[in-house]
Amino acid sequence: MKITLTELARKLNGRLEGNQDAIIHTVAKIEEAGPGSISFLANPKYEEHLYTTQATAVLVDKNFTPRQPVAPILVRVAHPYEAFVEVLRLFAPPIQRVGIESPCFVGKCVHLGKNVYVGAFSYIGDYSHLGDGVKIFPQVFIGENVTIGEATIIYSGARILDNCVIGRRCIIHPNAVIGSDGFGFVPQKDAHYEKIPQLGNVVLEDDVEVGANTTIDRATMGSTIIRRGVKLDNLIQIAHNVEIGEHTVIAAQTGVAGSTKIGKRCSLGGQVGIIGHLNIADDVKIAAQSGVGKSITTPGQIVQGSPAFCINQYRKCYVLFKKLPEMYQKVQVLSSQQIKRNSEVDTGGAG
Amino acid sequence: MKITLTELARKLNGRLEGNQDAIIHTVAKIEEAGPGSISFLANPKYEEHLYTTQATAVLVDKNFTPRQPVAPILVRVAHPYEAFVEVLRLFAPPIQRVGIESPCFVGKCVHLGKNVYVGAFSYIGDYSHLGDGVKIFPQVFIGENVTIGEATIIYSGARILDNCVIGRRCIIHPNAVIGSDGFGFVPQKDAHYEKIPQLGNVVLEDDVEVGANTTIDRATMGSTIIRRGVKLDNLIQIAHNVEIGEHTVIAAQTGVAGSTKIGKRCSLGGQVGIIGHLNIADDVKIAAQSGVGKSITTPGQIVQGSPAFCINQYRKCYVLFKKLPEMYQKVQVLSSQQIKRNSEVDTGGAG
Amino acid sequence: MKITLTELARKLNGRLEGNQDAIIHTVAKIEEAGPGSISFLANPKYEEHLYTTQATAVLVDKNFTPRQPVAPILVRVAHPYEAFVEVLRLFAPPIQRVGIESPCFVGKCVHLGKNVYVGAFSYIGDYSHLGDGVKIFPQVFIGENVTIGEATIIYSGARILDNCVIGRRCIIHPNAVIGSDGFGFVPQKDAHYEKIPQLGNVVLEDDVEVGANTTIDRATMGSTIIRRGVKLDNLIQIAHNVEIGEHTVIAAQTGVAGSTKIGKRCSLGGQVGIIGHLNIADDVKIAAQSGVGKSITTPGQIVQGSPAFCINQYRKCYVLFKKLPEMYQKVQVLSSQQIKRNSEVDTGGAG
Repeated sequence: MKITLTELARKLNGRLEGNQDAIIHTVAKIEEAGPGSISFLANPKYEEHLYTTQATAVLVDKNFTPRQPVAPILVRVAHPYEAFVEVLRLFAPPIQRVGIESPCFVGKCVHLGKNVYVGAFSYIGDYSHLGDGVKIFPQVFIGENVTIGEATIIYSGARILDNCVIGRRCIIHPNAVIGSDGFGFVPQKDAHYEKIPQLGNVVLEDDVEVGANTTIDRATMGSTIIRRGVKLDNLIQIAHNVEIGEHTVIAAQTGVAGSTKIGKRCSLGGQVGIIGHLNIADDVKIAAQSGVGKSITTPGQIVQGSPAFCINQYRKCYVLFKKLPEMYQKVQVLSSQQIKRNSEVDTGGAG
Repeated sequence: MKITLTELARKLNGRLEGNQDAIIHTVAKIEEAGPGSISFLANPKYEEHLYTTQATAVLVDKNFTPRQPVAPILVRVAHPYEAFVEVLRLFAPPIQRVGIESPCFVGKCVHLGKNVYVGAFSYIGDYSHLGDGVKIFPQVFIGENVTIGEATIIYSGARILDNCVIGRRCIIHPNAVIGSDGFGFVPQKDAHYEKIPQLGNVVLEDDVEVGANTTIDRATMGSTIIRRGVKLDNLIQIAHNVEIGEHTVIAAQTGVAGSTKIGKRCSLGGQVGIIGHLNIADDVKIAAQSGVGKSITTPGQIVQGSPAFCINQYRKCYVLFKKLPEMYQKVQVLSSQQIKRNSEVDTGGAG
Repeated sequence: MKITLTELARKLNGRLEGNQDAIIHTVAKIEEAGPGSISFLANPKYEEHLYTTQATAVLVDKNFTPRQPVAPILVRVAHPYEAFVEVLRLFAPPIQRVGIESPCFVGKCVHLGKNVYVGAFSYIGDYSHLGDGVKIFPQVFIGENVTIGEATIIYSGARILDNCVIGRRCIIHPNAVIGSDGFGFVPQKDAHYEKIPQLGNVVLEDDVEVGANTTIDRATMGSTIIRRGVKLDNLIQIAHNVEIGEHTVIAAQTGVAGSTKIGKRCSLGGQVGIIGHLNIADDVKIAAQSGVGKSITTPGQIVQGSPAFCINQYRKCYVLFKKLPEMYQKVQVLSSQQIKRNSEVDTGGAG
C-alpha cells in the first residue's frame, strides 16, 4: 500500500509539518524505520530515536516540542499511539480470499453465506451454518451443526467440534480446538475411570479472539461460555462449563478448571491456574503464574501467589522470603541468648 | 433421543414417583433444566433447586425426604450421581461414522479392520494397522507402521507418528501429537547442539485418553509408555522415555520430563512440573502448580510446592509465609531490645 | 539397517575386543538390550548392567577395566556417549520422501527446489519459496510469501503463516504454529479491546528446532527472531517481537512475553515464564517454573523462584521456608518471655 502524507494526516485528523507530497509505503518502530516509513513517538523515553530515525514521518503529540532539529516530517495528533494503531489498520492487508477451494469437504445441508471463503482440505460437517463473509482457511475442521457468525475468521488447523456456536467477527487462530470433550470421569472401585459423556457445547459470543493451540472444552451439559469481546492468548486451557465474562483478557498458557465463572473486564497474566467451581468477581487482576484456590468476591482485587492473595501483601511477604536467612540468623541468636539467660536465672546467676 | 420415564427407571433400577408415561428427551443441570429434561440431586447443598427446577424428572437418593412439595417426578436410585452418568451415556450420540471418505490417503500394505471410518484428508502411512471399529476423523495423520487397537477414536488433527502403538478403546483428542521427537541434544564445544536421533516410539495401552493439543514424545530408544486406563487432559507434555502407570490421571498443562516413571493410580493437578529421571510411587497425589524435583518413594504421599513436599507441611509453611511481615516485625523488636539490654549490661546499667 | 562390528568400530575410531564379524542391527539401552544390539556404558553407576546385558556389543571408555568377566563384545572409544550418538545417527532412518503427493495445493509462483517432498493435503501459498531438499509432511500449511531454507523438515500439521522466513536445516515438529498474530489490543473507554494489527513476521535462522504444538507469534512490526541453533521444546509460547539468541535452549511449556530479548547460549527450564520488554544476558540459566520479572544483566547468572533471583540464595530461602513453623514457634516463645520480662520490669519485679 502507498499513501501520501497529506491523505494520511487527513485520515488521522493530524497536522502535518513538512513535505505534504511525501509517500508512505510502510510502518516501522522508530529505531528500525527506513525511508518511506511512518513511525510514532508516544513515550518520552524514546525521544532520542527521533533525532536519528530514518523514518520519513513520525506521529507525535500535538504539543510536542523537539529539543533538537528533526529530519523526519512530524504529524501532530491528539494521541500518537492510538493514531499509529489506525495507521497499522490502514496497512494491514485485508483478507481477500473468497470462494471454495478444491478439494474441500462440505457436508449435507450446510449453509454458506455470501462472500465466504473455504480453503482447500477444510471439512464442514452436516447442518453447519457459515454466516456472510466467514473465512475458513485451509485444513480447518468444522463438525456437525456448528454455527459461525458473520465475518469470523478461522485459521488453518483450527477444530470446531459438533454443535458449537461461534459469534460474529471472532478470530480463531491456527490449531485452536473448540469443543473437545471436558475432562470428566467417575472413579470405579477397581481404580479404573469411567468416562462421563460430554453432551454440552461451547458458545463464543461476538468479537472473541482465541489464540493458537488454545483449547476450550465443551460442557458436560449446557455450555462453556466465552462472552463478548474476550481475548484469549495462545496455549490456554478452558475446561468444561467455564464461563468467562465480557471483555476479559487472558495471557498465554493460563488454565481455568471446570465450572469456574470469571467476571467481566478481568485481566489474567500468563501461566495462571484457577481451580474449578470458583467465582471470580468483575475487574479482578491476577498476576502471572499465580494459582487461584478460592473465589475472589471483591471486584477489582489484584492478587498474586500460589495460592494467590492480595498482591501488595504478597509482595511484602516475598521481600521477607528473600530475607529469611537474615531473619533466621537473628532468631537463632535471640534464642541462644534467651537460653543462656534462662540458665543464668536458674542457677541464681546475674539476676 | 426420547425415552419414557418408565423405561429409564427400569434401566437405572430406580423407583418412580409420579407420571410413568412422561417422555424425557434431554439431560440438564438441575438449575438450568427445562421441561422434557431429567436432572439429578446428589449433593444436599443444591437441594433448594429441587423446589424451583423446571425439570420433568430428577434422580434422588432412594431415602431422600423432600422438605417441601416438589413439582418434578422423582426417580429414586441407590447412587443418584452414578445413575445420572448412566443417563448421560444413554443420551450420548454414538459415533456412527463408517467407511472411507474421499479424498484420503491410504499408503501401501495398510490394514483396515471392519467398520473402520477414515475421514477426508486423513493420511494413513504404509504398513499401518487399524483394528475393527477404529474411527479416524478428518485431517488426521498416521505415520508408517503404526498400530491402532480396535474401537479407538482419533479426532481431527491428531498426529500419530511412525511406529507408535495405540491400544484398544483409546480416545485421542484433536491436535494431540504422539511420537514427536524427544528433546535430546549433545552440546558441542562451540556451543551448538547436535541432535540425538530419537529412534524409539510411544506405546499407549488400552483405554487411554489423550487431551487436545497434548504432546507425547517418542523414546530415544525403547518406548515412552502410557499404561492402561491413564487419562491425560489437554496441553500436557510427556517427554521421551517417560512411563506412566495404569489408571493415573493428569490435569491440564502438566509436564513430565524425560525418563521419569510415574506409578499407578496417581493423581496430578494442573500445571504440575516433574523433572527428569525421577520415580513417583503409586497412589501419589500432586497439587496443582507443584514442581517435583526429587523422587517420591512413599506410596500415597500428597505433595505441594515448588519444589514440592508434604502438603500438610506445605500449607503450614504457606500460612506463615503470609505472616512474614508480622513475624519480621517481632524479630526486629526483639533484636532491638536485645541490643539495648546487651548495651545496658555492658555499661553496668540495669544489671 | 545392519552393520558388522568391524565396520562400526572403524567409523567410531574404536578398538574392538571380540568377534569382529558380529552383526549389529539395532541400538538399545544397556538394561533393555537384546542379541544383535549395541549399547553403551558411560556412567559408572550403570556398570552392573554390563555383566547381565544381552547386548551383542557395548561401547566403553578406552581405559575401562571390567571388574568381572563380560559377555558382550567391548568397543573401546574415547567418549562412549558421544560415540553412541554417532551410532544412533547411523541407525536413524533418513527421510527418503521425495516428490509431490496428490492431492496437495501449490499456489501461484511457488518455487520448489530439487528433491523437495510435499505431502498430501499440504497447502503452499502463493509466492512461497522452498529450498532444495525441503520436506513438507502431509497436512502442513504454508502461507503466502514464505521462505523455507534448504533441507528443512516440517512435520504434519505445522502452520507457517504469511511472510515468515525459515532457515536451513530447521526442524518444525507437528502442529507447531509460526506466525500467528501477536496478542496486542488497545483498551477502549467502554472496556472493549481494539485489535492492533500484527504486520511483522517471524524469522527462524538456520538449525532451529521447534517442538510440537509450540507457538511463535509474528511481530507487530519488524520480526520475532529465533537465532541460529536455538532449540525449542514442545508447547512453548514465544510472543511477538521476542528475540532469542543463538544456541539458547528452552524446555517445554515455557512462555516468553512480548519484546523480550534473550541472550546467547541461555538455558531455560520447563514452565518458566518471562514477562515482556526484558533483556536476559548471555549464558543465563533459569530453573524450571521460575518467573522472571526483571531484566538479568549479569551473563551466566543462574536464577530460580517466582519472581526469580539468584538460585543459591533462593535455595537457602526455600530451606528456611520449610522451617517457618519452627521459626514461628521460637519467635512466639521469645515474644511472650519478652512481654513477661517487660511487665516484671514495669512492676519492679525481678530487676
